[in-house]
Amino acid sequence: MLNPADDALAALLPDGVLRPITPVYLEEPRGRYRGQAGLVAAPRSTEEAAAIVRACAQARVGIVARGGGTGLVSGQVMPEGPAPLILSLERMTALRGLWPEENVLVAEAGMTLQAVRDAADGAGRLFPLSLASQGTAAIGGCLATNAGGVTALRHGTARALCLGIEAVLPDGRVLRDLKRLRKDNTGYDLRDLLIGAEGTLGIITAASLRLVVPPAATGVAMLQVPSPQAALTLLSLAEGRMAGGVTSFELISGQGLAFLSQTLPQIRQPLPGAPWSVLLEVGLPEGLPPQTALEALLVDAMERGLVQDGVIAQSGQQAAEFWNLREHLPQANRLIGAIASHDISLPLSEIAGFIDAAGAALAPHDVRINCFGHLGDGNLHYNLFPVAGRARGDYDGQRKALSRMVHQMVMDRGGSFSAEHGVGRLKVAELEEWGDPVRLAAMRAIKAVLDPLGIMNPGAVLSQAPA
Amino acid sequence: MLNPADDALAALLPDGVLRPITPVYLEEPRGRYRGQAGLVAAPRSTEEAAAIVRACAQARVGIVARGGGTGLVSGQVMPEGPAPLILSLERMTALRGLWPEENVLVAEAGMTLQAVRDAADGAGRLFPLSLASQGTAAIGGCLATNAGGVTALRHGTARALCLGIEAVLPDGRVLRDLKRLRKDNTGYDLRDLLIGAEGTLGIITAASLRLVVPPAATGVAMLQVPSPQAALTLLSLAEGRMAGGVTSFELISGQGLAFLSQTLPQIRQPLPGAPWSVLLEVGLPEGLPPQTALEALLVDAMERGLVQDGVIAQSGQQAAEFWNLREHLPQANRLIGAIASHDISLPLSEIAGFIDAAGAALAPHDVRINCFGHLGDGNLHYNLFPVAGRARGDYDGQRKALSRMVHQMVMDRGGSFSAEHGVGRLKVAELEEWGDPVRLAAMRAIKAVLDPLGIMNPGAVLSQAPA
Repeated sequence: MLNPADDALAALLPDGVLRPITPVYLEEPRGRYRGQAGLVAAPRSTEEAAAIVRACAQARVGIVARGGGTGLVSGQVMPEGPAPLILSLERMTALRGLWPEENVLVAEAGMTLQAVRDAADGAGRLFPLSLASQGTAAIGGCLATNAGGVTALRHGTARALCLGIEAVLPDGRVLRDLKRLRKDNTGYDLRDLLIGAEGTLGIITAASLRLVVPPAATGVAMLQVPSPQAALTLLSLAEGRMAGGVTSFELISGQGLAFLSQTLPQIRQPLPGAPWSVLLEVGLPEGLPPQTALEALLVDAMERGLVQDGVIAQSGQQAAEFWNLREHLPQANRLIGAIASHDISLPLSEIAGFIDAAGAALAPHDVRINCFGHLGDGNLHYNLFPVAGRARGDYDGQRKALSRMVHQMVMDRGGSFSAEHGVGRLKVAELEEWGDPVRLAAMRAIKAVLDPLGIMNPGAVLSQAPA
Repeated sequence: MLNPADDALAALLPDGVLRPITPVYLEEPRGRYRGQAGLVAAPRSTEEAAAIVRACAQARVGIVARGGGTGLVSGQVMPEGPAPLILSLERMTALRGLWPEENVLVAEAGMTLQAVRDAADGAGRLFPLSLASQGTAAIGGCLATNAGGVTALRHGTARALCLGIEAVLPDGRVLRDLKRLRKDNTGYDLRDLLIGAEGTLGIITAASLRLVVPPAATGVAMLQVPSPQAALTLLSLAEGRMAGGVTSFELISGQGLAFLSQTLPQIRQPLPGAPWSVLLEVGLPEGLPPQTALEALLVDAMERGLVQDGVIAQSGQQAAEFWNLREHLPQANRLIGAIASHDISLPLSEIAGFIDAAGAALAPHDVRINCFGHLGDGNLHYNLFPVAGRARGDYDGQRKALSRMVHQMVMDRGGSFSAEHGVGRLKVAELEEWGDPVRLAAMRAIKAVLDPLGIMNPGAVLSQAPA
């Protein structure tokens, strides 16, 4: 087990890296876990980060890396066991380089996603990753959790946008692989192994990121669809018509709109009361005005019965309004207060059946369902809420069974219980239950050989092996 | 070391998997290495493949997996050490499933890339990976080597097109991760670890592949550019104008056209004598005819001095002719006979400087240079040929030094000595010399823990550890 010998550890750390511990280092957004108060160290350089890791290895103290702290599966707080050192990337926020002509940017891990996006924008380029929390989320955390967001349909998740990484491995050595190359087939893909490993195999300190040239024009529409199945057929139609130019395809439920009306009535709803709608964004070539292309899609889709009503944004401001609605759905959910949230993915052809079956299975349990999210990726946020007049607490005894029921139905259809948020500490039991045992054994073997002391984010992703 | 006890091994294998050994199993396309004659086993199922691996583990016999045998770095033949068992995927060619509405196909590893493409096409979908050798190359080999090809600019390499794999691990257990999901953040990315590992960590037996809805229309042009730098500026211009619809952007040199004239004069050249030209393919939305879009690009690019002359294909047949020219460049090279070939990548902004500097450095050495390839990916095939009147053999004493010079200039500019072909056996020394030592140590650790007996493609990627 780990040794919380903070005084001994402090003496081993580089000068000036310790920070006063404040509550923010111990919190995670869902409030499900609270971290223990150990040391907080914020390196100013990769070398300092490596020295901190070496010190922790020597003192046998666990390390929890922390970026913006926005992760939703409690990978950033360690509530049990000996208190860890929290390694905050807050001082490693440099833009190390920007090569617009290469569509490449190298960022330190503590840069916020918004800052990365702004830097790209300032050079006439786009870093496509986009999340509601991007003003706070650090790019290192986005990579450690392989964040998804609203543009993964077109541009992939964080993994697909990373060309190379610099990382401190568990023994304190620095992996230097910040290449600015699209193609490099020289050995095992350690980059993708560390991406999504949630700080359990090393700490990403910097990354080489792939930018894109922004499309000549973008267009946004909100379309009312008769069903999620119709939405998926619409997506295929749109992808063919738009030649892969569909950037986002977000499902919005009537329940989500109702929560929005109730909690954030100032947000204008272009399709009020629509039981199902989608927010569609396209990026299109020069010579094809998005409104023309979207109108033609709308006509085609209405003729096929795939769309019942629709609004095409007539200005950038209106497009921003549509997105503002989408981005406030999670806030409305928080204001209502979910009983349980699920970040699931399904094979696309299983989605409609799942929504029907899960709705039927949950009907006797007196809950409201807000099912929304990145439909184009097969990724739904399937969240359960109390019926009007009842409180979250009334469901305390049911929560676990309800979540299990949802996850079981997802797994039975070849889906995933964590599409984009990761495993963290919240879903370790789910991974143990549903993960392929051969895959789990290989993961444990890799963890054991790269982190034999078990100091990297102990208890996240994989349950902690007994000492 | 490995034990070549073929008789003992044969007794452990499943019935009916052994195949007569023929020369084809011992050859690789460049003719640099010849494999040793051991056993050849061709499983009919994943279970048989696993049984073969278990038998080899028990008998301590190395295993070289073989798909179509088209790899260019000798990963498929083992010329030294005790003779291995060749595990041929030739009987595992089933299409396990096709879900057009999901844009997903599950293929067994022995299916050729062409068969995968045809299956997708038959369902109105496109599997974008495209290589000159696709009629022979097996999809399993494409994944094991993370193949690139002519569409990586738009769709990524093989890795980006794979959603999940089934693989036999070195201990004979089967990793079952054939998910049909776009997003699944549940633990370490073993898929990407096995992809590109060239059969040294396990044998991919099947894969879940990502298809796309074909674009409404495609267009192809050949454009003469004043220089490679102008070509890269043209690419940025085209990417903005086409909203990411540029599928391919291939550089062709005057030397390449001259080799083509000399060896394959029947192939029509639309821009004969052009010192530098590019083949550009775009996939565009409904409502924007590719010829209109390409003409507008051509006018814009000519005004900027980025293009000197150009031909836009006026029919599918003409587009196919342009591609036919591009695809015959390697054949012309083979007919001329290269002294040395280099599959390099560079940061895009280093390419023009590299081409100038390498040309100057090689000038005293009396060689002809054919520099061509996937410019949009920063991936060039930089191949050296005898001057007229001299033969390949005349350069035998210089070959190594010339290759080293080229690779050193690439590495000095942050490039890679293997962009898309892999390491195989041909580039093990280069990886040891130029690879980041921390990365290499982590690779060796992973190899040792997953394949402790060292039976998986011994000597490929990593030099074989002494027993």
